[in-house]
Amino acid sequence: MNVEDVRFPTSKDLTGSDAIHTDPDYSATYVTITTSDNNLKGYGLAFTLGKGNDIVAECIKHFFPLFNGLSIDEIEKNIGKLWYDCADHSQLRWLGPEKGVVHMALAAIFNALWDLIAKKNQKPLWQFVVESKPETIINWLTFKNIEDVLTKDDAFKILTKSQEFKKERIEKILKEGYPSYTTAAGWLGYSDEKIVELCQKFMSMGWKHFKIKVGLDLEADVKRLALIRQTIGDDCSIMVDANQQWSVEQSIKHINAYKQFNLLFVEEPISPDDVLGFTKIKKAVGDVRLATGEACGGRVMFKQFLESGAMNICQIDSCRLGSINEILTVLLMAHKLNVPVFPHAGGVGLCEYVQHLCMIDYVLINGEKDNKVVEYMDSLHEHFIYPCNLKESHYMPPLDHGYSVEMKEDSINTYSFPNGNYWRENQ
Amino acid sequence: MNVEDVRFPTSKDLTGSDAIHTDPDYSATYVTITTSDNNLKGYGLAFTLGKGNDIVAECIKHFFPLFNGLSIDEIEKNIGKLWYDCADHSQLRWLGPEKGVVHMALAAIFNALWDLIAKKNQKPLWQFVVESKPETIINWLTFKNIEDVLTKDDAFKILTKSQEFKKERIEKILKEGYPSYTTAAGWLGYSDEKIVELCQKFMSMGWKHFKIKVGLDLEADVKRLALIRQTIGDDCSIMVDANQQWSVEQSIKHINAYKQFNLLFVEEPISPDDVLGFTKIKKAVGDVRLATGEACGGRVMFKQFLESGAMNICQIDSCRLGSINEILTVLLMAHKLNVPVFPHAGGVGLCEYVQHLCMIDYVLINGEKDNKVVEYMDSLHEHFIYPCNLKESHYMPPLDHGYSVEMKEDSINTYSFPNGNYWRENQ
Repeated sequence: MNVEDVRFPTSKDLTGSDAIHTDPDYSATYVTITTSDNNLKGYGLAFTLGKGNDIVAECIKHFFPLFNGLSIDEIEKNIGKLWYDCADHSQLRWLGPEKGVVHMALAAIFNALWDLIAKKNQKPLWQFVVESKPETIINWLTFKNIEDVLTKDDAFKILTKSQEFKKERIEKILKEGYPSYTTAAGWLGYSDEKIVELCQKFMSMGWKHFKIKVGLDLEADVKRLALIRQTIGDDCSIMVDANQQWSVEQSIKHINAYKQFNLLFVEEPISPDDVLGFTKIKKAVGDVRLATGEACGGRVMFKQFLESGAMNICQIDSCRLGSINEILTVLLMAHKLNVPVFPHAGGVGLCEYVQHLCMIDYVLINGEKDNKVVEYMDSLHEHFIYPCNLKESHYMPPLDHGYSVEMKEDSINTYSFPNGNYWRENQ
Repeated sequence: MNVEDVRFPTSKDLTGSDAIHTDPDYSATYVTITTSDNNLKGYGLAFTLGKGNDIVAECIKHFFPLFNGLSIDEIEKNIGKLWYDCADHSQLRWLGPEKGVVHMALAAIFNALWDLIAKKNQKPLWQFVVESKPETIINWLTFKNIEDVLTKDDAFKILTKSQEFKKERIEKILKEGYPSYTTAAGWLGYSDEKIVELCQKFMSMGWKHFKIKVGLDLEADVKRLALIRQTIGDDCSIMVDANQQWSVEQSIKHINAYKQFNLLFVEEPISPDDVLGFTKIKKAVGDVRLATGEACGGRVMFKQFLESGAMNICQIDSCRLGSINEILTVLLMAHKLNVPVFPHAGGVGLCEYVQHLCMIDYVLINGEKDNKVVEYMDSLHEHFIYPCNLKESHYMPPLDHGYSVEMKEDSINTYSFPNGNYWRENQ
């Protein structure tokens, strides 16, 4: 097992900048698992914003000894227990528990392990997962701390029930793909002209859902939303992202002022940890849907948000939740509580990951997709050997084996930090 | 600024072991801040269980550049803004936000900065804090994400109101000290004989409050609690700590079965993130008091727990909350919502820290102490130059300047990891 600190200098053109993350260098702690078979390797990553990527990488190394001497077969067979052993590590858990750096480290490792397992079984990961038996899948999961909302029995029933629909869902998704929304038109620093131009461009490419960053200036936001609504018309959807910057009171004021624009959702008005704060906002804004989850620490927070009724769109993150093992429990809870899942993407590698997650949610768990959208951002895909593939704004199911984040060697050599060619020349 | 990874091999005798933390090596990421005055240095730490102490130390280094070139006067004057700049660092915040490794790193640095500031002002930290003006203190704090429960105005009023009582409270606390409870008698692995012997020993030393670890075996726990009640009588108090191991359902079952022992509180029945889970338990167990907080990520979680009515004892941690700046906001919220604060201690350096925190809570904020107890554990104090001082089970106010965690050079040299003498010989 090996880990690389790979950083892309996206802060130079302010890709992904918002009110709180003003200068992100989209980065990956990139894990490689080698096997005795030189043609079989697992790749996985956690996503960060630059500084601190090294911290996650160092933490990842602390988990390596737990896998010493295990064969792929043993790893596949015991993946649920191995996950729990890592999450519950008697010393490292103090640094979380199950949140922040230690949990992102765990996510990176298990993302790589799932890549390896899918490749060994010669399938794309989504296909490997949906074709696994419910009794197998159940053993990948932990129900600790969530049993008051989702029991093993509940999960088993949901998984079993979907078996009879799997075949037709797979055929449908292979043909139609899964709808996406774009964030590319609405970064906070863009001029009105640029936003109009970008909305028109993405509409012509097939997008119908546009996410816009909003800020503290309510009047400016309302003007901009009016402009966008005028540009895209009533058949398209607008959603807004406040990136955790408001108070509960400000949230209520802003969200009520946006009601005229019939938004699809409002994302992260306040702190991602504040279940009760979201509940207060929800009570005051009525049927406006609140979205959160990309910065949500783990299944215990999702459990509460889902149960509270204040998370109306569940935005799982493939690198903050503890990979497939934990993501499946969140998908199952969201399904049980009737909350649609719109996975978070963008960054680096996240689109490559979510294409698997939305297929799994549709085929194995939820069976709905046409009123849902998964985030998409046209950024950094060129560094991956098997980048995601969109057709008329729809994610098409990946067909290559594994979990899709193997990077090009040249990209790693160039952007490895601090010794890659780019960083040696630009620091 | 400098940071050392110092680890004490406490796992050898299982000090501090419980159902979840089976082999802790109590450790400190130990920060030293030097100044141009060779006699003026600041020392601070974050506490971990061993593995991963290096991760926190590495993270601490990432914050150092934010203090480059600042004088102590500038740091003292801008301590509130500096805190917020660290907590809200545009790239590092992704690793939290404000929780886990990044937040512990921030705690260690600000613990050292507060030590430095108190020393510069030639006072013990508690005294420096309580003698500062309300208008000064207010600027140390951030109200972001908590304004729906505590506004700047609320805080100012509480601080102002206590001014007239300060003098008499200081006199009283200098004479009487602050009551403590001991965890030393109740570790999970101890035999019945050892527990009886230790209870008797600590009673003879003045302790009246005993915390016991409980486990999954309800019958064994009940037997043990009966034994302890018999040993210590009805004038002493028992509290139990479940260390996050139960489900909501198990919690209710266990806690109801313990009712016969009239417990002072039940600590951490479930995940420390599960506000709604605690609320469910609270509803089912009636007037049994629930305690949590030592693993609580930050003020946003405390806000919710306090507001929910399910945190009946507020257990702040000096190294997980972001030092004085954030601790004060939690003390203020707890006071406003009428929840007593019983700080978490033990580990390494935590007793040295909490002696300041309980004085501050008493003198500056809450004005009550006789029905409260602060945790105490007789462990590792010998490594500190100014260890805490207990008299008849009461923490006596520290009189030396600073925040009390300066370590002996010999201890650092011996237990520095991995190159200290102890670790070179014992790995």
